Amino acid sequence: MRSEADVEPRLRDALEQLTAHPGKLIRAGLVYTAARHFGLGPSAAERLACGVEYFHVASLVLDDLPCMDDATMRRGLPCVHRQHGDATAILAALTLINRAYALIAAALAAQPRRVRTEAAACLDRSLGVAGSVGGQAWDLAFAATDRTARTVSRIAARKTGALFGLALLLPATLARPSSAERRALHALCVYWGQLFQVADDLRDVLANSFDAGKTTGRDRPLARPNLAHALGVEGARRRMARLAAQAEHVLTALELHGGTRWAHLRAASLAFRPALALPEPVRTAA
Amino acid sequence: MRSEADVEPRLRDALEQLTAHPGKLIRAGLVYTAARHFGLGPSAAERLACGVEYFHVASLVLDDLPCMDDATMRRGLPCVHRQHGDATAILAALTLINRAYALIAAALAAQPRRVRTEAAACLDRSLGVAGSVGGQAWDLAFAATDRTARTVSRIAARKTGALFGLALLLPATLARPSSAERRALHALCVYWGQLFQVADDLRDVLANSFDAGKTTGRDRPLARPNLAHALGVEGARRRMARLAAQAEHVLTALELHGGTRWAHLRAASLAFRPALALPEPVRTAA
Repeated sequence: MRSEADVEPRLRDALEQLTAHPGKLIRAGLVYTAARHFGLGPSAAERLACGVEYFHVASLVLDDLPCMDDATMRRGLPCVHRQHGDATAILAALTLINRAYALIAAALAAQPRRVRTEAAACLDRSLGVAGSVGGQAWDLAFAATDRTARTVSRIAARKTGALFGLALLLPATLARPSSAERRALHALCVYWGQLFQVADDLRDVLANSFDAGKTTGRDRPLARPNLAHALGVEGARRRMARLAAQAEHVLTALELHGGTRWAHLRAASLAFRPALALPEPVRTAA
Repeated sequence: MRSEADVEPRLRDALEQLTAHPGKLIRAGLVYTAARHFGLGPSAAERLACGVEYFHVASLVLDDLPCMDDATMRRGLPCVHRQHGDATAILAALTLINRAYALIAAALAAQPRRVRTEAAACLDRSLGVAGSVGGQAWDLAFAATDRTARTVSRIAARKTGALFGLALLLPATLARPSSAERRALHALCVYWGQLFQVADDLRDVLANSFDAGKTTGRDRPLARPNLAHALGVEGARRRMARLAAQAEHVLTALELHGGTRWAHLRAASLAFRPALALPEPVRTAA
């Protein structure tokens, strides 16, 4: 440690690994497009998008820890804790979380108080006990629940849905949505979040770790909620088709109601398709 | 999991344990008094104080983990991870961190942009790689450094000093300090933060875990930075006396310059005394 500004080498390496392999950046893309659409300048939109993506990456790093999902691979590489140790993984996640809050505060600093207050409430709901942290706690405690598909879905709504919802709802605070629009956006969060979760559950069952780029086949030995276990593979595929149809329905209603105001969401729904592709072809809704 | 609002029982128990045993609340007291002094209403001041305290408690929970300091006791009780598991301890810490950001955003929502921007920068500096997270990374990597007293002090400045500084500097953003006052406040942070760190280092060496209410005697076997090891017990005591004198000097200068504007800091310095008491009497400065 030569000066006060030095970053400890393992922490620096961990942060470099995380930023050098950014994944599909689905959430960042969603936030950036929406924020620009609602009038935020390019650098503020970038900060907002980075912030949401950092929360997502931090949650992956922590979920992969031995005391959580004990994963070994992520994004085609050994997990951060496998490369740099558990302590460094935790500190890297905390670094991302703190930067995320700083970036989001900077992005929204010029917004009126109403927008800032709603954005803070959105972060609180999405990341706290009612959101991703609470969902992860239930995920780990799943073995002690009734293990029904309903409970699996409720846990997914909090664990994946909440962070996905953040990407949708945080930039939407800029648009000051009506209560009807707000309800529709919440519904879209639930459907899209669940859609990604079921795809992830199916991938855990169907794919090998090499193709998925992350550790698969872990949900059953760890007794973790997985809709492909609760409903069977075919049942989970039917659920995906139903969720896609429900999301489509909400999206169409938003377009009819708000015109081009929500056009970026249509673009997003098209952009999601590759990320929702499964190892075997998915049957489409009738 | 009966409804979406349910908190998973282990996480709820961990959060209840943490809030039921709040410790000495030194940082909360400092923030509340300063925020009221600078005109914040009682409920906003309480939120700001809670937020800073939550960051501190979260850092203790994480530092106690087996992959960090592997402590067994904290505040006279088994550590959170010993009672509720590592995963729950991490999730409890994240819950506190997210609540802390929400509380601080709510406390400062009505402030002008300049104050909010400075508060966000203060959080970023105190909690990121330049602050407590970066300090903790160096703390864990101490064995690989030159292990000099200078390095011990630099690590302490980031690890303990940064969080202590947050309690001092965050409410001070409300006062829009001059650059001279800002420099003096930073110096006070360094001296007070180091003072608490040296007291903690001496306690690790001198006290048993029962009296300290937390695991002691861990720094040497874990090769962690400790000024009582680097300077010897007598040297560390002399350092404490010197730091107390340096802090006193800055405080007097602030009082001469700003009159009653910084009077709450004098009250704080008196309130600290019991927390800085050591198992054996400390020699006072000549």
